[in-house]
Amino acid sequence: MHIVIVGGGAAGTSAALELRKRLRDADITLLEGESYPEYSPCALPFVIEGAIESFDDIVVHDPSFYASVANIDLRLDTAVVSIDTAKKVVHTATGPFPYDVLVLATGSAPFHPPIPGLPGPGEGKKTFFLKTMDDAKMIAGALEGSTRALVIGAGLVGMEAAVAMHCRGLSVTVMEALPSVLPQMLDPDMSRIVSESLAREGIDIRLGVPVLSYGEREGGVEVHTSSDVERYDLCVVACGVRAQASLAAAAGLAVNGGIVVDTQMRTSARDVYACGDCVLSTCAVTHAPILGQLGSSAVRQARVLAAAVSGYPDTYPATYNTAITKLGPIQAGSAGVTVAQAERAGLSVLSYRFKGSTLPEYYPGGETILIKLVYGDGGRILGGQVVGSSGVLCRINMLSVALQQGADLAFLAGMETAYTPPLSPTVDPLCRAAEMALRKEESRRRARS
Amino acid sequence: MHIVIVGGGAAGTSAALELRKRLRDADITLLEGESYPEYSPCALPFVIEGAIESFDDIVVHDPSFYASVANIDLRLDTAVVSIDTAKKVVHTATGPFPYDVLVLATGSAPFHPPIPGLPGPGEGKKTFFLKTMDDAKMIAGALEGSTRALVIGAGLVGMEAAVAMHCRGLSVTVMEALPSVLPQMLDPDMSRIVSESLAREGIDIRLGVPVLSYGEREGGVEVHTSSDVERYDLCVVACGVRAQASLAAAAGLAVNGGIVVDTQMRTSARDVYACGDCVLSTCAVTHAPILGQLGSSAVRQARVLAAAVSGYPDTYPATYNTAITKLGPIQAGSAGVTVAQAERAGLSVLSYRFKGSTLPEYYPGGETILIKLVYGDGGRILGGQVVGSSGVLCRINMLSVALQQGADLAFLAGMETAYTPPLSPTVDPLCRAAEMALRKEESRRRARS
Repeated sequence: MHIVIVGGGAAGTSAALELRKRLRDADITLLEGESYPEYSPCALPFVIEGAIESFDDIVVHDPSFYASVANIDLRLDTAVVSIDTAKKVVHTATGPFPYDVLVLATGSAPFHPPIPGLPGPGEGKKTFFLKTMDDAKMIAGALEGSTRALVIGAGLVGMEAAVAMHCRGLSVTVMEALPSVLPQMLDPDMSRIVSESLAREGIDIRLGVPVLSYGEREGGVEVHTSSDVERYDLCVVACGVRAQASLAAAAGLAVNGGIVVDTQMRTSARDVYACGDCVLSTCAVTHAPILGQLGSSAVRQARVLAAAVSGYPDTYPATYNTAITKLGPIQAGSAGVTVAQAERAGLSVLSYRFKGSTLPEYYPGGETILIKLVYGDGGRILGGQVVGSSGVLCRINMLSVALQQGADLAFLAGMETAYTPPLSPTVDPLCRAAEMALRKEESRRRARS
Repeated sequence: MHIVIVGGGAAGTSAALELRKRLRDADITLLEGESYPEYSPCALPFVIEGAIESFDDIVVHDPSFYASVANIDLRLDTAVVSIDTAKKVVHTATGPFPYDVLVLATGSAPFHPPIPGLPGPGEGKKTFFLKTMDDAKMIAGALEGSTRALVIGAGLVGMEAAVAMHCRGLSVTVMEALPSVLPQMLDPDMSRIVSESLAREGIDIRLGVPVLSYGEREGGVEVHTSSDVERYDLCVVACGVRAQASLAAAAGLAVNGGIVVDTQMRTSARDVYACGDCVLSTCAVTHAPILGQLGSSAVRQARVLAAAVSGYPDTYPATYNTAITKLGPIQAGSAGVTVAQAERAGLSVLSYRFKGSTLPEYYPGGETILIKLVYGDGGRILGGQVVGSSGVLCRINMLSVALQQGADLAFLAGMETAYTPPLSPTVDPLCRAAEMALRKEESRRRARS
């Protein structure tokens, strides 16, 4: 069996390795347009920051691993030009690759916002996007000798880039057209804690400030807002990503903002599968099609895909949007949907915000942790957000696990959690949050009746 | 309504406060034999260690809080002598307390092991048990001028006491008749990591070494083992606890190693409830009666009890034994049952041990985390153990939450978890552990068929 995989990122490489585990005798060819085998794109801001020493560190496997250990034919710098699903062949500049099974793992590309004068990816000298290893290397290079950096966009990548450059000693400004940071993860009441914390660190965050026009000038960039004209030494554009589905669309596959797949990662074309950032997922809470865009989802999808190809059907469930970020001193996590997302989906939604501590009051070193629970009328959990300086991973993962099992507030409130004074309070703040939310809903019900 | 509560620890005090929330007009009397209002007994080793500055810090509420804020009549130094359930009155040295509703929260007492010559609680000069505030104060006092300390018993309290005294600069020896430390929480393969880590710290841990006889000598204690006679400046005896149920038994209540209660915390006597360490719980995994003995359980039971008394029946579920401890550089957590406990309960049990890391390989500062999953034939999770230097709370809580929802290995393996390089690997080690366990069971099944 000839398996061709388009895209050597986390999704494609995981698919290749999972397929190799299950199909000892298959020929597996992995086509990658970039010059690097799989690396961790989520780690790029942390290499720029200096927390990770070198870009080489984040390459997952040495190139030699693919042929010698995994028996995978990895072709770097091999961009795919077109796919012929009738003849079952993939065309590249270096020649055709026939397939029995094709896997599309073409990932996502940064969105190029329609700001007059803004260069696209790869077009500017001091204007950078942050998606690939080469993007990050160019940014890291541009930091030398620069003092003032601009970030356009206050999503996850924009904020991580801002913190990275701040850590490298630059004066950093973030401009965001929307009124809050991390809008995909946090409602404004929670993200305010994040933006205030970073403002205290010295990052200049301007919310509700769209960039009206933009130009590269000698040795830097110039941006126009409604009130100002400002110059910076460099700019990182981070206005979200889009699924790279144009190859699939051109080949006649069903595409709807992302490649359409079933729960076994099969596309609309026979023997063509897809996984990772390029596919359309389903939001487990709203049941709406969404772009998952999480590294962890890519790995899980690859596993389901390999099972399907090898005849052991598994299913990839809907996605719960479980995400976390560390921005300097502050951590923020999210699972399920925010109030804003739930409302946009037409769900009836309630929420409760709770301020707790990571340790018992009497134990030194406890830190404030803020938890927001998002739930439906009957108390069913729809999502949650956690912000704090530590302990965020633990609570967001607990919440996500409970959510994945259809938990309600009463379950969360009654959950048994582990307690020892140096590590946790008697009753976990997540349980306390649910308990308080239950109490609020109880008095609301009483007041109504 | 007159409510009398016997025992002012976490269980009794939580019950009093929960009852006050629900019953604004009840008279609530809280009878406590000790001289302190509620404090955190789990924190005692950490005060001895010096991590918490003062014993005063761990007192939960100032004595004045009870009368002035909570409208609770707290009577310290008021030991209960007997209970008359027919006349509905509690007798104390200072007089009778009639009740409409009685709550027993009499807690637990340290076990006095049958070692010839070993003084009981309060009987020795250099021999201490570690259960109450006064016990801990006496131990802290005895450390001054001492250089060699012995701990008999390597359970949770014994190990925490050993680490505390080690931190205070004493040379500490632990003698345990059983072959491993923390046998209630960990199987021997996991607890070995803990004992080896503490041995490297300089604590002398002797397993499978019963103390054959014991005596207090001038300025210290002398112990005889099968091979040696040794002298220490002081000894902490920590051989487990027993439910304090003698008052209940004398009053004719059903007692079976602990006070028997239903899921609403009602005892066998009319209008008599009980909660906390003194009651018999049910193990959620084996369905066997067990002593829960967790501070977190006490609080939850108190809540259920208050709901029942005030006519809003809730139920206290079986217990999942979710526990964690921090012993110097190492943390250990447990949920559900160990392999040993499952086997003793006659369950068919399998297990898998996985060594992962708390961070992606490339991110500096990742630490080894060891996860053992305990599961039944069909993959249903029965329990789990986690040992490491960090990140243990997160994994044991996730595991406990999944266990509380009846998860199996496939669920654990597929759980969506939050990922960002500075805080977590792409796929959480708990999920990886389950994935590897599934794979092992799959090949075992294939080999069999």
